[in-house]
Amino acid sequence: MTRPELGVCYYPEHWPEDLWADDARRMAEAGLNWVRIGEFAWTRMEPEPGKLDFGWLDRAIDTLGQAGLKVVLGTPTATPPRWMLERHPDMLAHDRQGRPRGFGSRRHYCFSHEGYREECRRIATLLGERYGRNEHVHAWQIDNEYGCHDTAISYSPAALRAFRDWLARKYQSPQALNRAWGNVFWSMDYDSFDQIGLPNLTVTEPNPAHVMDFRRFSSDQVAAFNRVQVDALRPLTDRPLLHNYMGTGPTHTDFDHFDVGADLDIATWDSYPLGFLVDRVSDRDEAFRLDFARQGDPDFQAFHHDLYRAVGRGRWWIIEQQPGPVNWAPWNPAPLPGMVRLWTWEAIAHGAEAVCYFRWRQAPFAQEQQHAGLLRPDSADAPALAEARTVAEEIAQLGEVRPALGHAALLFDYQAAWAIETQPQGSDFSYWTLTLAAYSALRRAGLSVDILHPSEDLSNHAMVLAPGLVFMDDALKARLAAHEGPVIVGPRAASRTPDFAIPVPLPPALPGLDAQVARLESLMPGLDLPLEGGGHVHRWLEEIEGDAERVIETTDGRPVLMRAGGLHYLAGWPDVAGWDRVVDHGAAEAGLETLALPEGLRFRDTETHRFAFNYAPRPVQWDGQVIQAAGVAWWEKPSV
Amino acid sequence: MTRPELGVCYYPEHWPEDLWADDARRMAEAGLNWVRIGEFAWTRMEPEPGKLDFGWLDRAIDTLGQAGLKVVLGTPTATPPRWMLERHPDMLAHDRQGRPRGFGSRRHYCFSHEGYREECRRIATLLGERYGRNEHVHAWQIDNEYGCHDTAISYSPAALRAFRDWLARKYQSPQALNRAWGNVFWSMDYDSFDQIGLPNLTVTEPNPAHVMDFRRFSSDQVAAFNRVQVDALRPLTDRPLLHNYMGTGPTHTDFDHFDVGADLDIATWDSYPLGFLVDRVSDRDEAFRLDFARQGDPDFQAFHHDLYRAVGRGRWWIIEQQPGPVNWAPWNPAPLPGMVRLWTWEAIAHGAEAVCYFRWRQAPFAQEQQHAGLLRPDSADAPALAEARTVAEEIAQLGEVRPALGHAALLFDYQAAWAIETQPQGSDFSYWTLTLAAYSALRRAGLSVDILHPSEDLSNHAMVLAPGLVFMDDALKARLAAHEGPVIVGPRAASRTPDFAIPVPLPPALPGLDAQVARLESLMPGLDLPLEGGGHVHRWLEEIEGDAERVIETTDGRPVLMRAGGLHYLAGWPDVAGWDRVVDHGAAEAGLETLALPEGLRFRDTETHRFAFNYAPRPVQWDGQVIQAAGVAWWEKPSV
Amino acid sequence: MTRPELGVCYYPEHWPEDLWADDARRMAEAGLNWVRIGEFAWTRMEPEPGKLDFGWLDRAIDTLGQAGLKVVLGTPTATPPRWMLERHPDMLAHDRQGRPRGFGSRRHYCFSHEGYREECRRIATLLGERYGRNEHVHAWQIDNEYGCHDTAISYSPAALRAFRDWLARKYQSPQALNRAWGNVFWSMDYDSFDQIGLPNLTVTEPNPAHVMDFRRFSSDQVAAFNRVQVDALRPLTDRPLLHNYMGTGPTHTDFDHFDVGADLDIATWDSYPLGFLVDRVSDRDEAFRLDFARQGDPDFQAFHHDLYRAVGRGRWWIIEQQPGPVNWAPWNPAPLPGMVRLWTWEAIAHGAEAVCYFRWRQAPFAQEQQHAGLLRPDSADAPALAEARTVAEEIAQLGEVRPALGHAALLFDYQAAWAIETQPQGSDFSYWTLTLAAYSALRRAGLSVDILHPSEDLSNHAMVLAPGLVFMDDALKARLAAHEGPVIVGPRAASRTPDFAIPVPLPPALPGLDAQVARLESLMPGLDLPLEGGGHVHRWLEEIEGDAERVIETTDGRPVLMRAGGLHYLAGWPDVAGWDRVVDHGAAEAGLETLALPEGLRFRDTETHRFAFNYAPRPVQWDGQVIQAAGVAWWEKPSV
Repeated sequence: MTRPELGVCYYPEHWPEDLWADDARRMAEAGLNWVRIGEFAWTRMEPEPGKLDFGWLDRAIDTLGQAGLKVVLGTPTATPPRWMLERHPDMLAHDRQGRPRGFGSRRHYCFSHEGYREECRRIATLLGERYGRNEHVHAWQIDNEYGCHDTAISYSPAALRAFRDWLARKYQSPQALNRAWGNVFWSMDYDSFDQIGLPNLTVTEPNPAHVMDFRRFSSDQVAAFNRVQVDALRPLTDRPLLHNYMGTGPTHTDFDHFDVGADLDIATWDSYPLGFLVDRVSDRDEAFRLDFARQGDPDFQAFHHDLYRAVGRGRWWIIEQQPGPVNWAPWNPAPLPGMVRLWTWEAIAHGAEAVCYFRWRQAPFAQEQQHAGLLRPDSADAPALAEARTVAEEIAQLGEVRPALGHAALLFDYQAAWAIETQPQGSDFSYWTLTLAAYSALRRAGLSVDILHPSEDLSNHAMVLAPGLVFMDDALKARLAAHEGPVIVGPRAASRTPDFAIPVPLPPALPGLDAQVARLESLMPGLDLPLEGGGHVHRWLEEIEGDAERVIETTDGRPVLMRAGGLHYLAGWPDVAGWDRVVDHGAAEAGLETLALPEGLRFRDTETHRFAFNYAPRPVQWDGQVIQAAGVAWWEKPSV
Repeated sequence: MTRPELGVCYYPEHWPEDLWADDARRMAEAGLNWVRIGEFAWTRMEPEPGKLDFGWLDRAIDTLGQAGLKVVLGTPTATPPRWMLERHPDMLAHDRQGRPRGFGSRRHYCFSHEGYREECRRIATLLGERYGRNEHVHAWQIDNEYGCHDTAISYSPAALRAFRDWLARKYQSPQALNRAWGNVFWSMDYDSFDQIGLPNLTVTEPNPAHVMDFRRFSSDQVAAFNRVQVDALRPLTDRPLLHNYMGTGPTHTDFDHFDVGADLDIATWDSYPLGFLVDRVSDRDEAFRLDFARQGDPDFQAFHHDLYRAVGRGRWWIIEQQPGPVNWAPWNPAPLPGMVRLWTWEAIAHGAEAVCYFRWRQAPFAQEQQHAGLLRPDSADAPALAEARTVAEEIAQLGEVRPALGHAALLFDYQAAWAIETQPQGSDFSYWTLTLAAYSALRRAGLSVDILHPSEDLSNHAMVLAPGLVFMDDALKARLAAHEGPVIVGPRAASRTPDFAIPVPLPPALPGLDAQVARLESLMPGLDLPLEGGGHVHRWLEEIEGDAERVIETTDGRPVLMRAGGLHYLAGWPDVAGWDRVVDHGAAEAGLETLALPEGLRFRDTETHRFAFNYAPRPVQWDGQVIQAAGVAWWEKPSV
Repeated sequence: MTRPELGVCYYPEHWPEDLWADDARRMAEAGLNWVRIGEFAWTRMEPEPGKLDFGWLDRAIDTLGQAGLKVVLGTPTATPPRWMLERHPDMLAHDRQGRPRGFGSRRHYCFSHEGYREECRRIATLLGERYGRNEHVHAWQIDNEYGCHDTAISYSPAALRAFRDWLARKYQSPQALNRAWGNVFWSMDYDSFDQIGLPNLTVTEPNPAHVMDFRRFSSDQVAAFNRVQVDALRPLTDRPLLHNYMGTGPTHTDFDHFDVGADLDIATWDSYPLGFLVDRVSDRDEAFRLDFARQGDPDFQAFHHDLYRAVGRGRWWIIEQQPGPVNWAPWNPAPLPGMVRLWTWEAIAHGAEAVCYFRWRQAPFAQEQQHAGLLRPDSADAPALAEARTVAEEIAQLGEVRPALGHAALLFDYQAAWAIETQPQGSDFSYWTLTLAAYSALRRAGLSVDILHPSEDLSNHAMVLAPGLVFMDDALKARLAAHEGPVIVGPRAASRTPDFAIPVPLPPALPGLDAQVARLESLMPGLDLPLEGGGHVHRWLEEIEGDAERVIETTDGRPVLMRAGGLHYLAGWPDVAGWDRVVDHGAAEAGLETLALPEGLRFRDTETHRFAFNYAPRPVQWDGQVIQAAGVAWWEKPSV
C-alpha cells in the first residue's frame, strides 16, 4: 500500500482569481495532496459554441500545482451549457411519464443521444490535447455521478431508437424476441423491431423480460457513453481515468458499475453518510436511525468501500467525502465531532488510495449553498478542516499499512438488483437492502469482507455469501459447489434464466444440494416466522423440497438454511438476529473467529493493523480499551 | 341444484403441443369438468390482420374434449395484437392525466372506440362461426375482466366524442343540461354540447353532476361494448355466454355489473382471497389482516358469491379461483393448507355451478410467472391440485344440495358507489366498505344473505339491509315501507336526486318515518362516538330531526337507529360492535335466530345442509365439534 | 371603533326570483347588515360575449337594499364563462407538470394572460358604470380568493413570456442575471432572456435564485391583475374595494398580500376553522387536533385576524365565516354548539368591522352542496342562524368597544415564506408553521398580538418577535436594535441576501449582538434536544459562535437564545414548552404580565374590554368564573 493521500474538490470558477493562491496554500498546509477541479465548468471553458477559453483553467492548474497539489481534472459533460440545447434540442432525457427533463440544473442529457455524445468527445479531446501531458494534472475524472437524479434511465425518442437497435442486434428477429420474452402470454408479439416501445406508460405492468432488457440496454448506454470519453482521452494522457460513483440505493444501481469500471483505472465514490442514512432504505428501524443520525449507518460506508474496491479492480478512492451537514437529504443534521476523521480512516483501512473532501469552501449561492465545505462561506475554517489535518498528521506518523484479503466474500451483481426491482413479488424486497443486511451481519461479527463480482476468483476466501443472486449460470454454480469453505447462497438464487423466466428444473438447482423451491411467499410486515433457536425470517420465505440437511428451521419446521457439505441454501430473509445466526454458522464452518462487537463498533483488518471505528454516539469498551464516540483506534499486528 | 363442477383455466398456446394430451388427461383424472381457453390468444388466432390460424385451436379443443372436458371458449378482445394499433392508432384509452395507455401488457383499448368495437365484432363472429356448434364448446366467455387495471374509465378523444353524444341524447339541449347540473353555481354553463369536456384536469373538483354523468356514461360504454359481442355470438351458438367479473373494491365498481349481466347468461368472477385482503380496503384493522393473511377476509368471498348470484340472475361460477400465492398484491403469502378446498366449498354452498382454478400450470415466463397454478412450472403437482381432487371426490359423495333463500337481503347499487366516490365528504367513506361491513355483521350472526339489486322483489326475505343507498325513488321507498319484516336503510339513504342534488324535503324522506337529516358530519379517525349500550359510530354521523322512535342512541343522546314499525333508519356508520347491535335488533324483529360465531367461523345454509367454514388460523369449536383451521364442515338438515 | 356589523353571502342567481324578497326579509330580521353577491355570476351578467343582462342584478340589489341590507358587489372574474375560452384559448394556467388547468370548476385563468386581464377590465368597468353610484352598493369585492386551488403560480406560456420580461426589466442583461443567480455553479448561464425557462420539470432542483425570482414574479402578477380592476373601478365609485383572502397555509402564502392590500381599502378573509384544522399543517399533534376537531385551532383564526388587520392597514372583515360543516376538508365534522358565536365574537374583539357568513342558504346542487349555510337547503333555519342572531343582539347591547394595540408585535413577511419553501433544508420547516407557533405561545401567555409587516413602525409595542425572517436589510436590523423593549429574531434571520445567497459576514449579523451562525442543522422527528430548564428544540438548530449572553441553552451547552441588551437571537425552533419559555423571558423583559391560561382559553384585550374565548370542548375556570365549552365572556375594563 502506498501512503494514503487526502484531497479536496475545488471550483476556481466560483471565486475571484485573487483568492486562488491563498486557497491553494491553505490546502497544502492542511496536508491535502489532491485537488479536483473543472467538472461543472463547461460555460467557462466554452462560453459560446466553439469559442474556447482555457486561460483561466491554465492559471488555476498552475496556481494549484505550484502549491504542491496534484490536480484531478474533470470533463464537464454533466453540465452541458444552455447553448447546447440550441444545437441539440432533442438531447434531453425523458422521465418515466414521458416528459423531457429540462434545463436549469444538471445532468440534462440522454445517454443515448448521438449528437451529445459527439459533443462530449469533442470537449474531452480538447481538454486532453491541452492538459493531457500537463505536469500538474495527475488524474482525470469523466463526467460526474452517472445516474444521479434518476438519470441512468431515459424514456426519450433517442433512447427508443437506440433500444430498438440494441434489441435487433441481440435477437436478430422479432420472432426470436417474442419467444425469449414469452410474448405469447398476452398476445404481446411484435412483427417488427420498430413496433417495440419503451416499457413505460403501459396499462399494467409490462412484460418483465421487456423491462429487464431495457434495464440492460440502459446500463449499456451509460458504459458506451463513458467509453466515448475514455477513447478520446487515452491517446492524449497516461494519467489514470476515473469516475465518481454514488452511494448505492434506489436508482443508484441503475447501471452496472463493473462495466463502466472496466474501462477506467480507478473507482472513486462520493460518500455522504448522514444524507444516505435518511435517504436510503436499510433493514433497520427508526430508533436505529435516530441513534446513528449524526454518524451514519455503521456499515453503509464500508460496504461501498469494499464494493468499489472491486469495481476498481483494487484501486479506489473517495473523491467526495461529506465534511459537515449537507443540503439534499430530507433532514440534514451535523456529524458528531470526530466523524469526518472516522470516515476518512475507515476508507483508508479499506484500502482507499485517497480521500478527498467535498468541497473546499461552502458556496454561498445556487443549489448547494447549505452544503458544508472545509471552509465556511466566509473563508473561516469549518470544523472538518481540523479533522482532515489530524488525519494528514496521523498518516504521516503511521507505519506502513499493508492491505489484506477479507475473511469473507460477498457477491454482488447489478443485474440481480434490476431483476428484483422488475419483479419484487414483495413490495419491500430490495436486493441492495438484502446484501447490506448480509454485509452488516458479517461486520457485526468482526469480520472483514471483500465484495466481489460473481465472475471473480473466490478461492482465497474462507466463506462466501451470495444473497439474492437471481442469475447464476452452471459454471458459477459449479465454482461455488467446488469452493473449499462454506458458501451460502439464497434466497432467490438462480431463480431466473437470462431471458427472465423461471428455470426448470426449479431453482436453485445447486450441484449436490437436494433442495428446490416448490413455492415461495412474500411476507407483509408483521407476518414474521420465528426460527428455532432464535431470530426470525421476515419479508420472504421459500418452501423447500428435498432432503438436504437442515441447519436452521422455523419453529413450525420449515427449512431456512440447508446444506450439502459446504454448499448452503438460505431460503428466506433473516432479521438481524437471524442473520447473526447464519453468519455464526458459516464462520464456524470456515474456522473463522467471530466477535461479539458492541453496538456501533466495527473492525477492519489489514495485514499490518486492526482498525476499530466506533459509530455509536457513546463510548464503547473493547479489550479493556475505551473508544470514544466517533473514535478510531488501531492496533499493530504482530508481523507473521 | 345440479351437481357442482370443477374446472381450470388453460393456455394451450403457452405450451408445446405434445404436452396437451397429457395435461388434458391429468385434468380429467383430478376430477375437473371444465377448461377455459383462448381469451388471450388473438395473435395466435390471427397472427397478421386477416390471416387466420385456427388449426391449433381446433386441435386444442379436440384434445381437451376427447379427454372428457367441456370447453369455455374466450374471445381474445382483452389483448388486441400490436398490429391492431397500426389500424387504429387512436384506440387506446387515456388515463386521468390525459396520457394514452400504451401497448405492452393488456386491456389497451378504449371502450368507446368504434373501430375497435368493429374488430371485436369481427373476431367474435369468426369464432362463433367456427366453434358456435362445436360439440366440446359448452360456454363462451366474452373478453376478460372488464375494468381491470382501472380501464373502465377512459379520458380519450374517443370517449370525449361519445360522452358528448351521450349527453346530447340525455339532455337534448345544453340549457337542460345546465339546469340539471346546476351550472349556474360557478358560471359553468355550456352553450353547446361540443364545449363539454371530460371531468379531469380541472382546476378544482368538477361539478359532481358532471362526474356522475361521466360515470354513468362510462358504465354504459362497457355494457355497449359487451353487447357487440353478445349480438355477434347469439345467432351462432346456443351455449351460455358469460364474463369474468372481479373482486369489488377501488375501481372495480366502475361499471354496473347488473347492466352487463343482463345481456349474459351466467355471471362468473375471479376470486383471489389473499390478494384482495392486502389490496382492498375493508373496515378491519391491521391485526385482523395479519390474522387472516393466509386465509383471506372471512366475508369477502361470500359477499361476491352473493352479489354475482344476483348479477347472474341465479346462475354464477367462480371461473378463476386462487390456488396458491399470486404475483400481483403488495405481498403474496401462501394459503394455509386446506384453504383452496375451503374456498371451493364455500362457493358451492353459495350456489356456484362451477369453480375453476386459475391456472393449470404456473407460467414460467411473462407477467404472471409467480402466479401459482395447479401444476408447478416443472409440471409437478402444486399443493392445490390435491385439494381440488378432494373437493371433486367430496362432491361425488355428497347427496343433493338444494339451494335456499338467505335469511336476509342486502341491497347493492353500483350507482351509489359512484355517487359516494364522486362526493365522499369523508375521505374514508367507501360504499363498498360500508356494504361489506353490513354483510359481515350479518354473517357473524350466522345468517345467510342474498345480495339484491334494489329493483328486485324483496318480499321473500325476513330482513332487508340497505346501507348507503344514495339514490332511492318513491317506488323503492314505498316497497321498503310496505315490507313485512324489518328494513334498515341508511346512512346517506336517498341523499341525492338523479341529477345529483340534495332533495327537498330533506333525506331520507321515508314514508311514515319522522326523521330527516338536518345536517351531517364526517368523522376523522379517532373522533368516534360511543353508543349507549355498546359499540360506536365512526366515520359518519347524521343529525336527525323528527320524532321517530329511537332504537340506538349515542351516549350523548343523538339518535343512530330510528324506526317506524319495520322501517328503520340508520344515521351513522357503526363500528364492528355497533353493526352487531344493529343486526341483532333487526334479526330479533324479523324473528331470526342469531348465533354468536367464534372469530373466523362462518355458516351458509342451503335447504338441505348447513355448511361451516373456519377462516381462523386455529381450530374452533361449534356445537361440540372441533373444526380445524381452514376446515369445512357440513350438517344435513332434517328434511322438512 | 364603529359598531361591528354582520352579513351573509348570497347568490340570487341560484334561486327563483320569488324567493329573494323573503330571503332579504329574513336576513334583516336576523340582524344582518351586509349581503355579498355577484362574484360567480358572469354567465348571468353576460350570457353571450357582449350580450349583457343586468336586469336580474338590478332587481336583486334593489330587493336586498329595500330590505335594509348593504350590498357588497363582487366582480365575477374568478369564474370566466366557457365562451371566454373560445376567445382566449391560451388563457388557462398550467400546473407544475406543464398541463393546462381546464374548464369545469373555477379560477381557470393565468394571472399573466393579457387578453384575460383586458376582459376583466371590461366587466369591472361595466359593473362600475352601472352600480358604482348605486345607493345600495356599499362595497366592492374584486375577484374571489386569489391563489385558491394553488392558482397563484402558473407554468403557462403566458407566464413564461411575462417572466422573461420581468427578468429583463429587473436585470437588464443576462450577464447580470447570471451573476446574481450564481449560474456559474453548474454552467447554468444564459446568453439571452429568451433562453430562460420556468423552474419546473428540471432534472433536479433548479437554482433557488431562479425559483425565488419566479415566486416574486408570480406574486407581482397577482397584484398587477388585481390592479387592473382597481383602476377600472376607482373612477366609477367611492365605495371601498376589498378582496377576500384565505386562511394561510401551504400555497396560500403564494402572493404577497401586503402588495395586493396596498391597492385596496379593506382586507377581508374567509375563515373556516374546522376545515383549516384538518387541512393545514400546524406544530401540534394528532391528540390536539382531535380535541379541537369541532372548534378549530385556538390560535389559527386570531392569527389571521391580526395578519389581515395589518394587510388592511387597520380595516378588515371576515367576509366568509364557516357556519357549520363544510365540504372540502378530508373530514368535515360539525362545530360545537356556540362556536359560530365564538368565532364571530373573536373577530369582533380583534377589530373586525363586519363578519359575514358563507352562505345564506346551503346549495343543494354543484360542488359545494355539503357546505352548510345559515339556512338548510329546505330553507329551514340551520343552527348557525340562531347564533348569528344572538351575536347581533349582543352587539346591540354591548357598549362601545375601543380597540387597543396588542402587547406584542409579530413580524410577518411573505418573501420569507417563499424563501423557506424554496430551500427548506429540513422537510418539515414551514415559515408559516413557525410563525403560528410563536403566535400561539404569545396567546397562551394571555397576550394580545399585532402582526406587522417588517416595514411598519414597531415603536409602540413592548415586545417584538420576528421568527424566520430570512431577508433583513441593514435598516431593519438597525430599527430592531434600537427598539426599546425586547426583540427576538431568529432562527434563519437575515440568512439570505436579496439575490438568495448566504451573506458574508455570516448571519444574522445583528448590530451589537456577538453571535453568528457557524453552521446549522435540520433535525428529523425524534432528534430533539432538551433545553436546560425545560422544553426542547426540534426541527432546527443553529451552531452559534460569539460571546453574546446566553439566556437559554441546550442541556449540552449549545446556545439557543442569546441577547445583547434587548436584542435577542433565537437559534432554533422551540417546541411548545420551549416557546413558552422564550415568550416568558421576553414578556418579563418587557414588563408584560403573562397568564397561565388553561388549555383552549384565549384572551383578546381592547381598550375597553377583555374578551375570553374557550376553544376547549369542556368548561374552564378563570378568575372564579366558569366559561362553558365554546363559551365567550367579556369584562369591561375600568376606564383609565
